Amino acid sequence: MGRRHHDALFPPAAIQRLTRHVDIDPRLVAEDFDRIPDLAAVELLITSWGCPPLDDAALARMPALRAVVHAAGSVKHHVTDACWDRGLLVSTAAAANAVPVAEYTVAAVLFANKRVVEISGLYREHRAALDWATHFPGFGNYRRTVGVVGASLVGRRVLELLRPFDFDLLLADPHLDPSRAEALGARLVDLDEMLAVSDVVSLHAPALPETHHLLDARRLSLLRDGATLVNTGRGSLIDPEALTAEASSGRIHAVLDVTDPEVPPPTSPLYSLPNVLLTPHIAGSLGGELLRITGSALDEVERYCGGLEFAHPVTREALAISA
Amino acid sequence: MGRRHHDALFPPAAIQRLTRHVDIDPRLVAEDFDRIPDLAAVELLITSWGCPPLDDAALARMPALRAVVHAAGSVKHHVTDACWDRGLLVSTAAAANAVPVAEYTVAAVLFANKRVVEISGLYREHRAALDWATHFPGFGNYRRTVGVVGASLVGRRVLELLRPFDFDLLLADPHLDPSRAEALGARLVDLDEMLAVSDVVSLHAPALPETHHLLDARRLSLLRDGATLVNTGRGSLIDPEALTAEASSGRIHAVLDVTDPEVPPPTSPLYSLPNVLLTPHIAGSLGGELLRITGSALDEVERYCGGLEFAHPVTREALAISA
Repeated sequence: MGRRHHDALFPPAAIQRLTRHVDIDPRLVAEDFDRIPDLAAVELLITSWGCPPLDDAALARMPALRAVVHAAGSVKHHVTDACWDRGLLVSTAAAANAVPVAEYTVAAVLFANKRVVEISGLYREHRAALDWATHFPGFGNYRRTVGVVGASLVGRRVLELLRPFDFDLLLADPHLDPSRAEALGARLVDLDEMLAVSDVVSLHAPALPETHHLLDARRLSLLRDGATLVNTGRGSLIDPEALTAEASSGRIHAVLDVTDPEVPPPTSPLYSLPNVLLTPHIAGSLGGELLRITGSALDEVERYCGGLEFAHPVTREALAISA
Repeated sequence: MGRRHHDALFPPAAIQRLTRHVDIDPRLVAEDFDRIPDLAAVELLITSWGCPPLDDAALARMPALRAVVHAAGSVKHHVTDACWDRGLLVSTAAAANAVPVAEYTVAAVLFANKRVVEISGLYREHRAALDWATHFPGFGNYRRTVGVVGASLVGRRVLELLRPFDFDLLLADPHLDPSRAEALGARLVDLDEMLAVSDVVSLHAPALPETHHLLDARRLSLLRDGATLVNTGRGSLIDPEALTAEASSGRIHAVLDVTDPEVPPPTSPLYSLPNVLLTPHIAGSLGGELLRITGSALDEVERYCGGLEFAHPVTREALAISA
């Protein structure tokens, strides 16, 4: 992992905990495998953002490697088929990383239904009391329909966190059956149906070839007038031109933490539309939230040292349909 | 109540439910008691925002009156000592009205710790990826300390809704003992201590003479650098000049749904400070959220008709220390 991620993820207290369980040079932070002095002896790799691919060539140099503990979300950037072929054990802190994304989403849903950011903007502009009920008829968080796209780690956590509120919760996921959705507190629906009946639709599907532009112009047009689209997943889930057109017309509202491209061009209307809250991919773990990932990764290292199975294992099959 | 509140609170379906239980002219909406044709026969009043005071003179004209069901929050504007002296039964929908305030507060806390509104503003301004972790070191929602001032209906609901998050919850309330606070999931602390150790402080104390400018210049100065002050209670809880000074310096952040005066003067810096999210008293029930109040009030009418005690009674004693 990069030095910067290392310093944020592994402050002295974390390193101290680590050295109680494993034989490690706490000063060593490797951004590539060449920098690890006794690579052939490495049994467990702690990886994070910036880890190079663990391909055949890399694995050939690590004959003793048995496990990879990833102190970040997706392992897709470095865990290759070669890892599965070698039978490596892989763990991820994706569940810990899902928490802040879900929290951001819940706040986004509550503020979106209440039109908080727009009203704040209007208040700033007019500096007087307006008739908010007339501006935003029927707004608020009572008995609204919220649709979650994707029963991913984030999607499940969002459903869990939304349970105490007065929402009708819908879930769209091609890999789920209705009873599993019900166990998550939601009603399983077709994506098109969800778009047509929801007040808020929040995207938590993985970026896969089959989810590229999942929300294209046709699907976006199914959204109700005044509905809010929340994307804390991946920018590629939405056709950017169709999204910009729908948002620019003012017909729909959006909370976008991710976009395609990752930073919209400076001329993009998304930056300044009053009905769009745009943030630069901050919903995930940042700042102090990185320590939740650290805790998760260190727990996994301890489980490994104690001969226990990982609490958050990754398998080849699960990885194929997740982020 | 006013015609506008009536129409929002009592749509046809609500009136239909009401007429199943009570003898009422569904076309009658009285903004003052003179407009009620057979005032002397009235046994139960359904009141809301805009109800005139139920003082000696008004009560003298309603010898049959036994109960007041308030379809709004505080009954302080119309329930006078004369009502208590007469032994009237009083109910309030304050608990239903507390829900949206608590929901707004929870979203405000989650977004404040994550600096969402400020980062969105910076992103809009720079239209490029900045180093957010350097701008906002240690930000995020992991293991932050959140202080709730006042174990009011809203304060209690806020504590309940904050439980699934990774927060250390503190509560300051002069009428509570530590074990009651613990039962609410929080540690009882002195207000000064709370201000000194919290990342977010949220005000849910009632507006009483003894809470006027509860947060004066001295107390505001106790807040940690970078702490966020959330006020969805009453503007009078904070010394407005001291608040404006602290917020203008950028030392603290604020989410203000109420201010003193209710609408700040057009020259107030509060409208445009990047570290302040200012909204025009919208946290409470608005739009579709009014129907939660309707449901609560109709439940109380049905309980009364069925000879049951109110689920949400108001007493003279409780009213003296609440909003």
